[in-house]
Amino acid sequence: MTAVPSLPPTGRAKLTDVARLAGVSVGTASKALNGSGSMRPETRQRVLDAVEELDFRPNQQAQSLHTGRSWTVGLMTTDGIGRFSTPVLLGAEDALGAGKISVLLCDTRGDAIREQHHLSNLMGRRVDGIIVTGRRTDPRPPLKGVEPIPTVYALSPSTDPDDISVVSDDRSGAQLAIEHLLATGRTRIAHITGPAHHAAARDRAQHTLELLKQSATELATGRVHFGEWSEAWGRRAAQAVLRTAPETDAFFCGNDQIARGVADALRENGLDVPGQVAIVGYDNWDVMALASRPPLTTIDTDLSEIGRRAALLLLDAIGSKLAPGLHSVPCRLVVREST
Amino acid sequence: MTAVPSLPPTGRAKLTDVARLAGVSVGTASKALNGSGSMRPETRQRVLDAVEELDFRPNQQAQSLHTGRSWTVGLMTTDGIGRFSTPVLLGAEDALGAGKISVLLCDTRGDAIREQHHLSNLMGRRVDGIIVTGRRTDPRPPLKGVEPIPTVYALSPSTDPDDISVVSDDRSGAQLAIEHLLATGRTRIAHITGPAHHAAARDRAQHTLELLKQSATELATGRVHFGEWSEAWGRRAAQAVLRTAPETDAFFCGNDQIARGVADALRENGLDVPGQVAIVGYDNWDVMALASRPPLTTIDTDLSEIGRRAALLLLDAIGSKLAPGLHSVPCRLVVREST
Repeated sequence: MTAVPSLPPTGRAKLTDVARLAGVSVGTASKALNGSGSMRPETRQRVLDAVEELDFRPNQQAQSLHTGRSWTVGLMTTDGIGRFSTPVLLGAEDALGAGKISVLLCDTRGDAIREQHHLSNLMGRRVDGIIVTGRRTDPRPPLKGVEPIPTVYALSPSTDPDDISVVSDDRSGAQLAIEHLLATGRTRIAHITGPAHHAAARDRAQHTLELLKQSATELATGRVHFGEWSEAWGRRAAQAVLRTAPETDAFFCGNDQIARGVADALRENGLDVPGQVAIVGYDNWDVMALASRPPLTTIDTDLSEIGRRAALLLLDAIGSKLAPGLHSVPCRLVVREST
Repeated sequence: MTAVPSLPPTGRAKLTDVARLAGVSVGTASKALNGSGSMRPETRQRVLDAVEELDFRPNQQAQSLHTGRSWTVGLMTTDGIGRFSTPVLLGAEDALGAGKISVLLCDTRGDAIREQHHLSNLMGRRVDGIIVTGRRTDPRPPLKGVEPIPTVYALSPSTDPDDISVVSDDRSGAQLAIEHLLATGRTRIAHITGPAHHAAARDRAQHTLELLKQSATELATGRVHFGEWSEAWGRRAAQAVLRTAPETDAFFCGNDQIARGVADALRENGLDVPGQVAIVGYDNWDVMALASRPPLTTIDTDLSEIGRRAALLLLDAIGSKLAPGLHSVPCRLVVREST
């Protein structure tokens, strides 16, 4: 001990400290710790003694130099608000964190410069793979310069069909809603949704039209009501529907906020939900769906399952088992008092 | 090139590959890359040539072996839902990610076994520090066995006063609300809030009582209405207040959901907000505050600033500049149409 001038604090020793105390090179110390390479037993023992004396902790960084893997995955979200990406992130973290993989969180806030900064940081850290997620279901351009690191896109698919993307199955969502309404005897269904330039609104509307056509039915107002993802739009649109098609007996809404606005407008017009009119929302966002009067029947998009699937596909890709293309996670119908 | 039997794919070369190609030991290759240690210029050049040939990327793991720092910070959240911890996490990520520090995300979901698993993983990765956050403002026991890694508690403070904790200044929040109501001529103020066993409800209620006392005022109903953090509770409690103290001219609510329920109940009782009765919420949760009719005046707890401050205090602590104790982030008043 006295021969060593300055020992680092307990548990903070570096490999170089171990090598110095053992009187060997860093390479030899490293080989001794990893059980690789041939060396005299006394040399190995000297290194192990130094490890104990310095309380040198098994260091995943050092191990990474030998396995070529960092056992880290980058989770990149473009969603500063986080309502949609948070459950995706937590689902992925859950699937990855159970093993020895750690998750590096990067928030790009939709900014291309931040995305590039985070990306080069992740590359420098030699992540084994990257999961990219965002709040929109619209396809997004693939990350640039990320090859050869396996990458999976969650919720917001890549525009490149050769990339691996996990998305919510909007068709199954629309189908569950329409079949449920038809099964409960509704035939004059209105559809109120978000902006037409959002894929989530456009896709759900198109599936709704197709499904109604298959049942020889039409929308109550003859058209889709595109607008905003807000309660205020739900209230306004419901008023408009009641004026032009007073016989409407069901509303299928593009999200739970719109559905909640519709519920308020119907109540304030003296209409009973679900007695006279049924409402189905979308997202199963508990805050909205449960606080609505009445609580909403809605479509659960199972966002955490999207994150989990993305994580498992990424692990496959890291193991060179690539499954390019779109992977759809089916929706679930959650029945509450609005139908 | 032909002398080397198997080159790893571009950009995936390890330090051992560089050393082998340069014909030097791993230790020498490492020293050459870090510019440390003495060696012949030709040797250093051979290593640098190998780096170029193999497209060996600057590897933070390898660098960490020499600096003793991993340039990573653990972000541990106990909040599976994420409404409160997400902005704290993003604020911290923003402050840390601007530099070269990366953020390892761990979600414990309030489970002690998961917390210990993540903790030992973070220790194995030799994080430079840890930020712990949760959804409750109640103090939590400190992480076990985390010494000597600097740790900062955000939003949920540590019960140990020697730890570094960043909290929201509930007193400033109550003060902003009460002073605003008094300044706009309200004198009969009711206080409706969450469960009494939550520090957030208890603390805000106590500050409210003290502040009213200082203004020689009392609560309109003579007591605090503890209940749930929900709209339904806000509606029920507002009905009760209107029955027992019909002269009430303002409601200060423990969160925005309660405030929104109060707004609905008042409207449905034919009372004009803010003409006859004013409402102040708490949290500035945009979804609730903006969708309320009318939109809510509320207290913004600046959660992302709490995350940012926690990150900066952690960076100080990593640099051995410790600032133990409670650090309070003041609230802001956001005035909208409900007052």
